[in-house]
Amino acid sequence: MAPKKPSRVRARQPRGFGDRTSADLYAQERMLGIIREVYERYGFEPVETPMFEYTDALGKFLPDSDRPNEGVFSLQDDDEEWLSLRYDLTAPLARYVAENFEDLPKPYRSYRAGYVFRNEKPGPGRFRQFMQFDADIVGAPNVSADAEMAMMMADTMEALGIPRGQYVIRVNNRKVLDGVLEAIGLGGEENAGRRLTVLRAIDKLDKFGVEGVRLLLGDGRRDESGDFTKGAGLSLSAIERLERLYEFQSSEKRDPFLFMPAAELLNDDHVIGEKSSTGALVLGNPRVLDFYLENFRESALVEQGIEELRIISKLVRSSEYGTARIRLDTSVVRGLEYYTGPVFEAELLFPVVNEKGEKVVFGSVGGGGRYDGLVSRFMSQPVPATGFSIGVSRLQTALKNLGRLETTERLGPVVVTVMDRDRMADYQRMATQIRNELNAPGQPVVPVEVFQGNPKQFGKQLQYADRRNSPCVVIQGGDEKAAGQVQVKDLALGKELSAGIEDNAAWREARAGQELVPEAEMVEAVRRILARRAG
Amino acid sequence: MAPKKPSRVRARQPRGFGDRTSADLYAQERMLGIIREVYERYGFEPVETPMFEYTDALGKFLPDSDRPNEGVFSLQDDDEEWLSLRYDLTAPLARYVAENFEDLPKPYRSYRAGYVFRNEKPGPGRFRQFMQFDADIVGAPNVSADAEMAMMMADTMEALGIPRGQYVIRVNNRKVLDGVLEAIGLGGEENAGRRLTVLRAIDKLDKFGVEGVRLLLGDGRRDESGDFTKGAGLSLSAIERLERLYEFQSSEKRDPFLFMPAAELLNDDHVIGEKSSTGALVLGNPRVLDFYLENFRESALVEQGIEELRIISKLVRSSEYGTARIRLDTSVVRGLEYYTGPVFEAELLFPVVNEKGEKVVFGSVGGGGRYDGLVSRFMSQPVPATGFSIGVSRLQTALKNLGRLETTERLGPVVVTVMDRDRMADYQRMATQIRNELNAPGQPVVPVEVFQGNPKQFGKQLQYADRRNSPCVVIQGGDEKAAGQVQVKDLALGKELSAGIEDNAAWREARAGQELVPEAEMVEAVRRILARRAG
Repeated sequence: MAPKKPSRVRARQPRGFGDRTSADLYAQERMLGIIREVYERYGFEPVETPMFEYTDALGKFLPDSDRPNEGVFSLQDDDEEWLSLRYDLTAPLARYVAENFEDLPKPYRSYRAGYVFRNEKPGPGRFRQFMQFDADIVGAPNVSADAEMAMMMADTMEALGIPRGQYVIRVNNRKVLDGVLEAIGLGGEENAGRRLTVLRAIDKLDKFGVEGVRLLLGDGRRDESGDFTKGAGLSLSAIERLERLYEFQSSEKRDPFLFMPAAELLNDDHVIGEKSSTGALVLGNPRVLDFYLENFRESALVEQGIEELRIISKLVRSSEYGTARIRLDTSVVRGLEYYTGPVFEAELLFPVVNEKGEKVVFGSVGGGGRYDGLVSRFMSQPVPATGFSIGVSRLQTALKNLGRLETTERLGPVVVTVMDRDRMADYQRMATQIRNELNAPGQPVVPVEVFQGNPKQFGKQLQYADRRNSPCVVIQGGDEKAAGQVQVKDLALGKELSAGIEDNAAWREARAGQELVPEAEMVEAVRRILARRAG
Repeated sequence: MAPKKPSRVRARQPRGFGDRTSADLYAQERMLGIIREVYERYGFEPVETPMFEYTDALGKFLPDSDRPNEGVFSLQDDDEEWLSLRYDLTAPLARYVAENFEDLPKPYRSYRAGYVFRNEKPGPGRFRQFMQFDADIVGAPNVSADAEMAMMMADTMEALGIPRGQYVIRVNNRKVLDGVLEAIGLGGEENAGRRLTVLRAIDKLDKFGVEGVRLLLGDGRRDESGDFTKGAGLSLSAIERLERLYEFQSSEKRDPFLFMPAAELLNDDHVIGEKSSTGALVLGNPRVLDFYLENFRESALVEQGIEELRIISKLVRSSEYGTARIRLDTSVVRGLEYYTGPVFEAELLFPVVNEKGEKVVFGSVGGGGRYDGLVSRFMSQPVPATGFSIGVSRLQTALKNLGRLETTERLGPVVVTVMDRDRMADYQRMATQIRNELNAPGQPVVPVEVFQGNPKQFGKQLQYADRRNSPCVVIQGGDEKAAGQVQVKDLALGKELSAGIEDNAAWREARAGQELVPEAEMVEAVRRILARRAG
C-alpha cells in the first residue's frame, strides 16, 4: 500500500489551554494528596460528577459574562438539549445532591478535585481549563459549618507548608453586603441585576480608582477605547453612602492586618484583644464592623450578617485559630452569584512582583461560602450548604514561589544500552531481570528500560540516559558477551567524560565510573550504584 | 431582600454521563496507583494535555461515525476555529510531541490517565465520558518497543491481581491485514474508505454471521428495520478469499487457546513447542500464520507483518513471557484507523454472563499498537511510535467481578455530637483536639467531625454516625460538662441498641459500649476504641 501523504497539520495547543509536564504533575500529585488528607481528617469523602451538565442545571452564576456564551462552553445534544462544561465544582455538586438526596447521609460531607472550564478570553496565565479542589457540607444550616470550613482551609495551608503569618483566611458575610444594598434601595428580586453591577463596580476600585467606580455606580463609564459600560444608575446620595463605606473600609483594611510583620501577626491577641463597641471580641478589625452597624442601622440583614460573623469569630477562636489564621474582613466579596451567607477567601500574604513591576501580596488561592439556595433550586425544601474551593494551579504556583514544592529531580531509569541490534532479546531480558529484582510493591520505583531508539550511534544512547537523569547504564558488547560479563556505568561518576564520546571505539577507552562484572552480578552492581546515589 | 423563588429545575445527570461515588473513586485511585507504578518501572513519565484540541489536530480516526459530529464533541471558538474534546489520549499526545519535539528526550516515554469523550448514542454501560490510562514510546522504530508494550501490559494485569491464565495480551500486526486487503485489490490511498468498510464488516462476524458479512463485503445489507448499509463492493472471488481466511481463523481461534483450563495455559510449552512451517517458534497458533503465508504469498506486506510478529514472539519469549501471557492472534483488529504495525489487545478470560444470559469471556480491557504516521502528520520527518491504552472503568468492573477491589468499607469519622447547640464552640474544640492528636502526616487518616446538621433530634445524630460507619461518637450534655466528663461510645458495641433510641432521655438509659471519662482522657478513650476496631 502506498504511504499516505496527508497535508501537514500545524501542531499547536488550543488558545487558553495548556500542557503539563512531569515535574508539574508530580508536584500536583503531592499537593493534591496533602489537601485530600486534610479534607479526609474532617470526615469528607470523595464524589465526582462528569464534565458536562445540562445547561439549565448549571445555572448562571459566573461573575463575568463579557462573552456571548456567558462564560461557559456549551453545545446542543442531538435531542436538542443544551449541555455545558462545568465552570466550577459547586453547581454540579448541587445537582448531584438534589438527584440523590434520599440516599445521602445528611449532612453530606464531600470533596472532589477536577478540571473546570471557562469560555473566557485567554491571556497570559489565564487558562480556560483549570483545576479546582473543593470540599462542601450540604445540609448544614448553622454558621458553625462555615467556621469549620475556614479552619479546615487554614489547616490545609499549613499542611502544605505555608508558614503561619504567610496566609490568612478572610471571612465576610454576603448578608452584610446584601443589607447595604437593600439600604440604598436595591432590595428585591427586581434589582438583582443592579446589585450585581454595584458589586462589580466596587470590585474595580483598584483598577479604575474612586472616580471610575463613581461613574460605574452612576450613569456609566467610557474607557480609553471608547467602549461604554452602562452604570448601576444609583442616586448621588446612594453613591456617597457606598463611597464612605468603601473608603473607610479600604483605609482600615491595610491597618493593622496587611503587610504586618509575620511575628506580630502570630500574636493573635494583638488584634483579638480589641473589643468592638458591643463588647464582643472579634477576629478582625472591630472598627469596620461598628462602621457598618452605625451607618446601616436600618438594615436587619446587616445586623444579622455581623452577628453571624461574631459567632464564627467565637467558634474559631475557641478552637485556637486566631487572627494570624482566620480574620474577618468586610472587603471580601467573592464573584459567584450563588452565595447567601458567610464567604471566605484564602489569601497568601508573601510578596511577589506583579506584571507592572510592583511588589504585591500573592493574593487569593481559593475561596468559598454559604450557598443555601443552590441545591434547593432543584427541590421543594431548603437545603443549606457551605463549601470551599481551592484553585489548584494558582496554589501550585504559590508553593513554587515559596520553595515548598519538591524540586529535587527524580532519578531517571537504569538504561540497558543496545550495542548489537540483533541481540535485542538479550538486552530486553537483562532489563526485565533488573526491573523485576529491584522493584517490589510499596517500595520506591526503580525505573529500568532498554534503549528503544535507533541504536546506531552509541553516544546518543548515553546522551539519552543523561537527559533522563539516569543513575547508570548497562552495556554488553560482543567481547563482554563472549566473556559472560557486563559493563555497569555510574553516570554521575562518569558524566564529565561522556560529552566528547561519539562512537563505540572511543567509548571503550573511557572507563570512568564503569565496572566490569560477571553477568550473574549485574543486578548487584546496579544496586550498589543506586545505593551510592541514595546515600 | 425578598428570598429568590426560581422556577424549579429538574436535577438529572446528562444522558451518557455518570456520577461516581466514594467507593468507586477509592477503588479507582488504588487501581491507577498500581498501573502508574508499573509504567514508571518501565521508565515512563507523566505528561498531560488539555481536554480540548483543535479539531484538525485530532484528525478523524474513530471507528464509528454513525453520528453527524463524527463521534466527537466539537464547538467553534470565537476566532472561528473548531475545537473538539479529545476522543482518546493518543492523538493529543502526537500533537504534544510534534509541538515540543526538540525539547523532548527521544525515545520519549510518557504516560497519562484522563477522561476522553465520545459523542455517541448513550446506552446501558456505554458512557460518553470515560477514563483511559495510556503509555507510549515515541521515537521507537523497532518492534522491540511493541514487544515491550505487550510485556508491560502483562505486568500491569498481574500487578492488579489478575491471575495468570485469566488474562492474555493478544498481538497482531496491521501489516498482515493491510497486505491481505492489498492482495484482494484494495491497496492505495484511493481505497482507504473501502478497506475500512471491509474491516468493519469482518468485525461484525459475531453479530451478523457469515451471510450478513458476505452482504456487507458485497453490495450491502438491509437490516430488519429496513435501513440499508452500503457494502464494500468486493468481487465474489475476493469475498471468497476473505471468507476462507476468517473461517479458518475462527475455527482455529478457539483451539487451542480459548477456554483452555488455566493450568494448561500456564504451561507455555504446550503451545510454544509447536513449530511453524518455517521452523520458528511462535507465541501462538503457527497454523494460522502459515495459512496467511500460503494464501497471500503475493503480498510483501503479509510476509513482513508475519516476520515482525515472529520477532515479537522471540523477544517476549526470551524475557520469559509465554503464551499464558502474550499470544499472537491474527483476529485482533483494533478499531482506530491510525495503527500501522503491531496491534495489541488485553483480554480478560474469566467468564461473565452477558445481557443475553450467555456465558462469555469478559473480553477487552485495553489495547494499542504502533502508529508511525500520527506524529508525522504534524512534521516533515517520520516519527515512529507505539502505545497502549487501558479502559479504566471497564478494567475496574472486571476487578470488581474478580473480587480484586478493596471491598472492606472504610472506617468513617469519629463524630462529636451536639447536645446543646449553644455550646457548639466546645464541641468544635473537642473535635479539633481529637483530630489533631490522632492524626499525623503519613499515618492512616482518622476522620473527626462535629455534627453539623440540625442537632434537635439526638437520635438522628446517632443514625448519621451509623450511616457514615463511624467507629465512635463523643457526647457531652450538661451533666457531663458540669462534672468535667465526656461519654465516648463505641458504635460497634452499642449498635444493636441505638436503633430504638429517639430522644436524649431514652439515650441516657442505654449505655452499651459507652464509657464515661474525664475530659482529659477523651482522646485516649477514642484511641482505645479505634485500636479495638483495627485489631
